Amino acid sequence: MRWWGWGEGGRGSHRSPTLGPGMLRLLRDTVGVASSPRPPVALAQVRLPAAALPAQAHAELRALLGAEAVRDDHSERVQHAAGKGYPDLVRLRAGEPGEAPDAVLYPSHQEQLGALLRLCVRHSIAVVPFGGGTSVVGGVAPLQGEHTAVVALDMRDLAAVVRIDSESRLVSAQAGLRAPALERRLAASGLTLGHFPQSFEYVSLGGCAASGSAGQASTGYGRFEDLVVGVRLSAPTGEIALPARPASAAGPDLRRLLVGSEGTLGVITELDLRVRAAPRARCYEGAFFADFPSGVSALRALAQEHMAPAVTRLSDEAETRMSLAQAQAGGGSGAHLTRSALQAWAKSRAGRVYLRARGYGEGCLAILGFEGAPEEVERGRTRALEQVRRHGGLPIGRSPGEAWQRQRFAAPYLRDELLTHGVMVETLETATTWSNLRRLHLQTRTAIEQELRAQGTEGVAMCHVSHLYETGASLYFTLLARQREGAEIEQWRAVKRAASEAIARHGGTITHHHGVGRDHLPWMEHELSTQGVQALRSLKQQLDPAGIMNPGKLLPD
Amino acid sequence: MRWWGWGEGGRGSHRSPTLGPGMLRLLRDTVGVASSPRPPVALAQVRLPAAALPAQAHAELRALLGAEAVRDDHSERVQHAAGKGYPDLVRLRAGEPGEAPDAVLYPSHQEQLGALLRLCVRHSIAVVPFGGGTSVVGGVAPLQGEHTAVVALDMRDLAAVVRIDSESRLVSAQAGLRAPALERRLAASGLTLGHFPQSFEYVSLGGCAASGSAGQASTGYGRFEDLVVGVRLSAPTGEIALPARPASAAGPDLRRLLVGSEGTLGVITELDLRVRAAPRARCYEGAFFADFPSGVSALRALAQEHMAPAVTRLSDEAETRMSLAQAQAGGGSGAHLTRSALQAWAKSRAGRVYLRARGYGEGCLAILGFEGAPEEVERGRTRALEQVRRHGGLPIGRSPGEAWQRQRFAAPYLRDELLTHGVMVETLETATTWSNLRRLHLQTRTAIEQELRAQGTEGVAMCHVSHLYETGASLYFTLLARQREGAEIEQWRAVKRAASEAIARHGGTITHHHGVGRDHLPWMEHELSTQGVQALRSLKQQLDPAGIMNPGKLLPD
Repeated sequence: MRWWGWGEGGRGSHRSPTLGPGMLRLLRDTVGVASSPRPPVALAQVRLPAAALPAQAHAELRALLGAEAVRDDHSERVQHAAGKGYPDLVRLRAGEPGEAPDAVLYPSHQEQLGALLRLCVRHSIAVVPFGGGTSVVGGVAPLQGEHTAVVALDMRDLAAVVRIDSESRLVSAQAGLRAPALERRLAASGLTLGHFPQSFEYVSLGGCAASGSAGQASTGYGRFEDLVVGVRLSAPTGEIALPARPASAAGPDLRRLLVGSEGTLGVITELDLRVRAAPRARCYEGAFFADFPSGVSALRALAQEHMAPAVTRLSDEAETRMSLAQAQAGGGSGAHLTRSALQAWAKSRAGRVYLRARGYGEGCLAILGFEGAPEEVERGRTRALEQVRRHGGLPIGRSPGEAWQRQRFAAPYLRDELLTHGVMVETLETATTWSNLRRLHLQTRTAIEQELRAQGTEGVAMCHVSHLYETGASLYFTLLARQREGAEIEQWRAVKRAASEAIARHGGTITHHHGVGRDHLPWMEHELSTQGVQALRSLKQQLDPAGIMNPGKLLPD
Repeated sequence: MRWWGWGEGGRGSHRSPTLGPGMLRLLRDTVGVASSPRPPVALAQVRLPAAALPAQAHAELRALLGAEAVRDDHSERVQHAAGKGYPDLVRLRAGEPGEAPDAVLYPSHQEQLGALLRLCVRHSIAVVPFGGGTSVVGGVAPLQGEHTAVVALDMRDLAAVVRIDSESRLVSAQAGLRAPALERRLAASGLTLGHFPQSFEYVSLGGCAASGSAGQASTGYGRFEDLVVGVRLSAPTGEIALPARPASAAGPDLRRLLVGSEGTLGVITELDLRVRAAPRARCYEGAFFADFPSGVSALRALAQEHMAPAVTRLSDEAETRMSLAQAQAGGGSGAHLTRSALQAWAKSRAGRVYLRARGYGEGCLAILGFEGAPEEVERGRTRALEQVRRHGGLPIGRSPGEAWQRQRFAAPYLRDELLTHGVMVETLETATTWSNLRRLHLQTRTAIEQELRAQGTEGVAMCHVSHLYETGASLYFTLLARQREGAEIEQWRAVKRAASEAIARHGGTITHHHGVGRDHLPWMEHELSTQGVQALRSLKQQLDPAGIMNPGKLLPD
């Protein structure tokens, strides 16, 4: 992957979705863009701290893993210097990541891991497990904590599919396997994992497990934690091996303890995951609601009546407005900024006129994505659209849904382009109960807007509801603002803090699926209570008494 | 509840289901019964160790909770001397429970708990949280461990419904609340928790959470752990308060860590639970399969195609045979031993002739219980029965299902009567993947039968599949054997060990929903690996460093 952003190849490679000229005009008119493009520096210009792995440790690591599996060249160190959060990209593009691993390790046999971790304990080397490197919360930041050095433990070469048990709908795979590679293997057996986070193209299974990923289709397929039936974790003090069990009452569910542990207890090496029959049919529909509350009511009914489709999302007025404008502005590229656009349908002025005439002019767009056997999709669609209408919704056909599907993994590519144009783009996510959802939406958006105003920055905060549960749902905010050049990180930090404090104060979880990493540390005590954090600390003390595993993440000091 | 068994009032109270004369004859002909009844001793004859609560601690507890809330009279101590497992009942009925709490505490305000636990730490008093007292694995055995005394912490008076949030389908309740009381409260709002373990009539919410209960309708409503959206636990070092969140990625899911903790980390004081609309329609159907494998295939298809009804169960040939015999033998009481009987339908010889003529003579009976909105029930029934027929199943109408529903909570009452007649009755449960289910069934049954033969005891082992998951299902064994008088506990222990070792060796979890308690301790390292057990130990060390919480349970020494 590009060291300074998303995707492969050089900037503007034909594989990358782009904003297009219409959208750029729109941005110029709303948040403002830089007067001249701000491209990333060249790789050779990236400044790294000197690699500081002690010679003895280096030699032992090479002896253990092989010379080729211990890398400390500039390119490898830059590639593992950060994840893909906004502040990561700002620092990387400026050639100032600030930190980098002293070496990158590529174990190729699961059996090497125990010895590797013990070696790192002996030499006091911090270990950062590294899957796809797609964390947006600083989850793979190469922090060395109290240790003498830090290494990235890249799981790329531990990526085998161990076993497919079609009868039990289970796949066993090594943690370094990337999601697309697994889906290709499963497709050959007519199966799917059904886990499609926005980072799908690069994410590893171990990363999904470690960070508590949700996936865009979580409403249908469940969160990643719901897929984990068995798991193996290598910790400095030994291995925890929890075999595949559909369910158990043998004490607290340790599977759920390793999921979400973010590399701080050890490295997840293997997973037994629930899979499903690959859907033979897909139908993605759009619907319009006159306002956000009526859309939320419809989604709640869908979730509580067990008729919500695999993908269910509802943009608020601000996100809908942006999508419509963007669809109208969209040039030949067909790209758009947020992932819920009206695209073909609203490309014409006729579409907007149609909506306005029916009272949906400032309304909210929903995407309903049905997947499964053809008759199941058809029945689900009929029932769900009936429910949508009952809540005042207006089904508007397949174009918006199909546009969303085409662009579902586009946002990180577009983010790179926004950064080039001097636009800050950050995403924030939370979840709460249905009865608190509208309050949390309002309070969080208000907090973001107030902070931007206080900064004197032009910006927009928009949001969608997705990931439905019977008891509540997630809120996913996207904010765009003109970068404060030279103070990008401070600007980001202030907005992040304002939003996170509003979320914590108004009954939201500090993160629904991005994970804690470094960015959400300050709110963990509020989230879990002091004793809850202490409980996690005691676990870490047991499994990683030397504290080498991913220091500075998950647990506040 | 009766101190020596299940239900209320004297023996043979009109509220209790009874075996009936036909069933007794059947038992006499198969496993054999005692030559004369063996009733429990009188309450006054129960021998308890002298109450040993230090006077100072006693005085402080009375000062904290009030004099009426600290009880040490004979009756209270006997009531809290054991749970409701087979060995518990054997010992109690003989008047020799062996152990008893030195006092029984009844806190009435949640705020008392912190001080109470600190007081017990100061005086080195072991604390056994006590809800409904229905554990069948020794979960409430009053073991004092290394401490000077042991108290039962009865949560009966902390049983308030705190809040019903209909919009979010959530109820918040104190942990001492009994399941039937909660269902009555929810019914007034058109809601249900949908959690119906066999112990439903007496079980507390805290007990369900602490032990990882499943409930007979888990296939439809989820296991208890799936219902827990928020939880509060009082531990000796402080409180963990996890507010209601539909989902989160803020680290490992501590909710799942407190569920299944069996009182060893602290006492669960309050729960936020997901509820659903109360079903407006119910339809319980019977079906026959020619053999166990074809029935298992049908259940697997139902689970994997997401069309399994709320209650789905399949008896093996032995359990079906017993049910049929019992239904034919059944006297006026209409009672039966196992919970899956043919009752009215098979009461007539005509029913058996009908089945035999169609090749189902030695077949397997399944119960499919649909619940929900009327149209949902009708659609679900149509689709599921179509699937049943596709797997060679023969739908046989509603009588068997309705009989099962009437008797779903009867087994513990009947067990009391079996004990009176000198019959050992034990239940064992596990779960495994679909591809391993038939092997585990065979191996476990064989191990039980071999052990009974080795003892020279007449007995039968029968089983049903229930609690379906996409990746597997549970197996629930019931075994009946002639008691070895004077060696009842040794006999039970040998059978339990043989079965548990077969389960562990052949890929089953040591417990699917009964919990670990005292009985499953020896298999916990096998289940969680050594490091997994160490991880739990470190948690206990953090939350309960003095080790006063429910010693001798969950964690092997």
